[in-house]
Amino acid sequence: MPKKTKSKKTKKKKIATRARKPGEAPKNAFYAQSGGVTAVINASACGLIETARKHKNRIGKVYAGRNGIIGALTEDLIDTSKESAATIRGLRHTPSGAFGSCRYKLKSLEQNRREYERLIEVFKAHNIGYFFYNGGGDSADTCLKISQLSETMGYPIKAIHVPKTVDNDLPITDNCPGFGSVAKYIAISTREASFDVASMAKTSTKVFVIEVMGRHAGWIAAAGGLASTDDTPIPIVILFPEVEFDQKKFLAKIDAMVRKHGYCSVVVSEGVHYADGKFLAESGLKDAFGHSQLGGAASVIAGMIQSELGLKNHWAVADYLQRSARHIASKTDVDMAYAMGKAAVQFALKGHNSVMPTIDRISNKPFKWKVGMAPLNKVANVEKMMPDNFISKDGFGITKRCRNYMEPLIKGEDYPPYKNGMPQYVRPKNIAVKKKLDSRFKL
Amino acid sequence: MPKKTKSKKTKKKKIATRARKPGEAPKNAFYAQSGGVTAVINASACGLIETARKHKNRIGKVYAGRNGIIGALTEDLIDTSKESAATIRGLRHTPSGAFGSCRYKLKSLEQNRREYERLIEVFKAHNIGYFFYNGGGDSADTCLKISQLSETMGYPIKAIHVPKTVDNDLPITDNCPGFGSVAKYIAISTREASFDVASMAKTSTKVFVIEVMGRHAGWIAAAGGLASTDDTPIPIVILFPEVEFDQKKFLAKIDAMVRKHGYCSVVVSEGVHYADGKFLAESGLKDAFGHSQLGGAASVIAGMIQSELGLKNHWAVADYLQRSARHIASKTDVDMAYAMGKAAVQFALKGHNSVMPTIDRISNKPFKWKVGMAPLNKVANVEKMMPDNFISKDGFGITKRCRNYMEPLIKGEDYPPYKNGMPQYVRPKNIAVKKKLDSRFKL
Repeated sequence: MPKKTKSKKTKKKKIATRARKPGEAPKNAFYAQSGGVTAVINASACGLIETARKHKNRIGKVYAGRNGIIGALTEDLIDTSKESAATIRGLRHTPSGAFGSCRYKLKSLEQNRREYERLIEVFKAHNIGYFFYNGGGDSADTCLKISQLSETMGYPIKAIHVPKTVDNDLPITDNCPGFGSVAKYIAISTREASFDVASMAKTSTKVFVIEVMGRHAGWIAAAGGLASTDDTPIPIVILFPEVEFDQKKFLAKIDAMVRKHGYCSVVVSEGVHYADGKFLAESGLKDAFGHSQLGGAASVIAGMIQSELGLKNHWAVADYLQRSARHIASKTDVDMAYAMGKAAVQFALKGHNSVMPTIDRISNKPFKWKVGMAPLNKVANVEKMMPDNFISKDGFGITKRCRNYMEPLIKGEDYPPYKNGMPQYVRPKNIAVKKKLDSRFKL
Repeated sequence: MPKKTKSKKTKKKKIATRARKPGEAPKNAFYAQSGGVTAVINASACGLIETARKHKNRIGKVYAGRNGIIGALTEDLIDTSKESAATIRGLRHTPSGAFGSCRYKLKSLEQNRREYERLIEVFKAHNIGYFFYNGGGDSADTCLKISQLSETMGYPIKAIHVPKTVDNDLPITDNCPGFGSVAKYIAISTREASFDVASMAKTSTKVFVIEVMGRHAGWIAAAGGLASTDDTPIPIVILFPEVEFDQKKFLAKIDAMVRKHGYCSVVVSEGVHYADGKFLAESGLKDAFGHSQLGGAASVIAGMIQSELGLKNHWAVADYLQRSARHIASKTDVDMAYAMGKAAVQFALKGHNSVMPTIDRISNKPFKWKVGMAPLNKVANVEKMMPDNFISKDGFGITKRCRNYMEPLIKGEDYPPYKNGMPQYVRPKNIAVKKKLDSRFKL
């Protein structure tokens, strides 16, 4: 088990804890989920709420934003204290965002100061002293700004960002909770479908294509490479958004793979594009009714393999399945997501502000990690790309270095409970907190 | 545990067992996998080979056809006796066809008698007295013909068909091994993605579309309905191949669902078609390069929802993932698949011929079943359609009757072993049996 205590580095940076004065009501906390949800973002919520419940003398209630930050802006808060311990515990094994998420990016302070002021106003009205924001790069930025503005406005708030994104693109942290489970899903699905196509290849399907998420970076596509291991080698061709698509080179690669192995699998990122930057998925698909077709890099690749090489193929688009597949989540990922939520509360209680808990890798074999801490001004608006040396020389595979990084992240299974063959995911009651402000806020 | 002994009915029909004479070498068996593979067809192979190994005095070796029946025609036999007990045991948790399958339909006896004669010739050369064919309706027909012809040719063979098909379209048997696991995968995936879209619906995606297999019958699409249960209701719209697609009615249904619930999920069968019989998936998709696009009912539906209702949506195509997802196979399905392979050997040893083991449902609550037996002339070329009363009145959902039928089939989990986060599927060595015939056979 990894140690989840703070690192030496964070110890050095430890700032003074402001203890509550006797008789003072403990501040409440606000928690919101932001952006695309994952199989394990609720595990972070679980870690956060369970830890807060252990410190009732310091943290009053945890209010969740209904549909993320929108819930704060519209004063639509959920009282998580109304949820049973069993429901909160159940969040650990429930995919998606249990309180609702949103795609709503706050504008800059200069452009829309009133949004930030409104947040502080709502926090003040509900005696909220802790702001926990569970998201990616954008929400880290929002979190930082709220912390800064709250100081200026004389209502200081401890703002802690909780990392989450399947895109794995946050800096400093070794990886982002959510990524490990997508990676595991894609690796397993690619292995299973490859076994299938291998069985069929003699007389039928010879190429299987799977489209995966990742518009800007090939982290998820790279995970397809984990399907093939020394004890179970599989011919896999990966199309990364980092590598300009070259149709001729690609088709030559497929042709060679099928000649050698009888079949192959292709993992194509939705973000794959031509040299001129045009996405494969935006190849102007229209159906017979003139409806524009939404994306589909896999179908473009499949069409190409069929028409240019004459090879029968099948294609799948994993879409939401990959990021919601809690049934096969990575235990490592679940543990990390939980630890991030827990650490966020611990950091806040120690008086930290404008920080994000991180995952710090200690060693690969055996895999060890611990919780670290990063200042938000180093996190906000910084996108971590996949290192060049994770992609093999020919541009179609992953390197040993990539494998060493990724394999620990998919390790372990953490099955949800089942009833009558179906996973039992929880749905909190999500009871609203009574509004205290007269004003209504227009988004 | 269901009793896997033969039913009373089969007892009555029991025919005389031809005991091996002293000194006579036991006949070998031939086993082949046919058509599209499944998550559990290897579990049938496992049941068959493990059972045969317990009767070495009656059955010599089990030879498998490399790539199905093609392996018999070309005398390319695999000696399964070279595989360790661990490998054979591992087949139970390995998806796909471990010996290779094929899409190769033997012509009728009148059209291509030489193919059937060739099979008998190969069987004779390798002292094969048992023919086990693991497949769907076509292979049941082949199995029947081989049995008949072998009698005529004076080299009688016990021909037993082992049911397998994700399409669930074989008659007499309650269900087909392979179907339960696809159903479970689709039910779980639909539930998980529905949780995801529910989280995002406030500001982003409102409809999730998943395309599933089933060109002629909506068995698999119906399984999407299992995602919603009394304790976890989910707004789901199912598009069955049995119901002519009516765009206006469909869009009105989606609009109503989203108004009421804020979001909904659509499960669309690849076989959905318009009143004139034209598949949605064949709506003449072309990309910017003029490549014809291969299918995609989901993208057609998604485009329609976007352009006509202006609702943001996401779509997935499950394709091979659904039938190879051994990681979340139904335990009931695995048990049944194994039982079918085991029963096939037991039937052969009892002297039965031209039959198929079946799954006979005894009761729903508690779910009980036993192994039965069906004569192949009642199975071959008969396609079982989904009963009308499985589809709800409005054509977009499943009935209680359908649910009662399907729920037991997805019950139980049967996880494969994992190593470093990946399922450990076996690959037999597949060592060839030395050829005995001079002649080569042209397919």
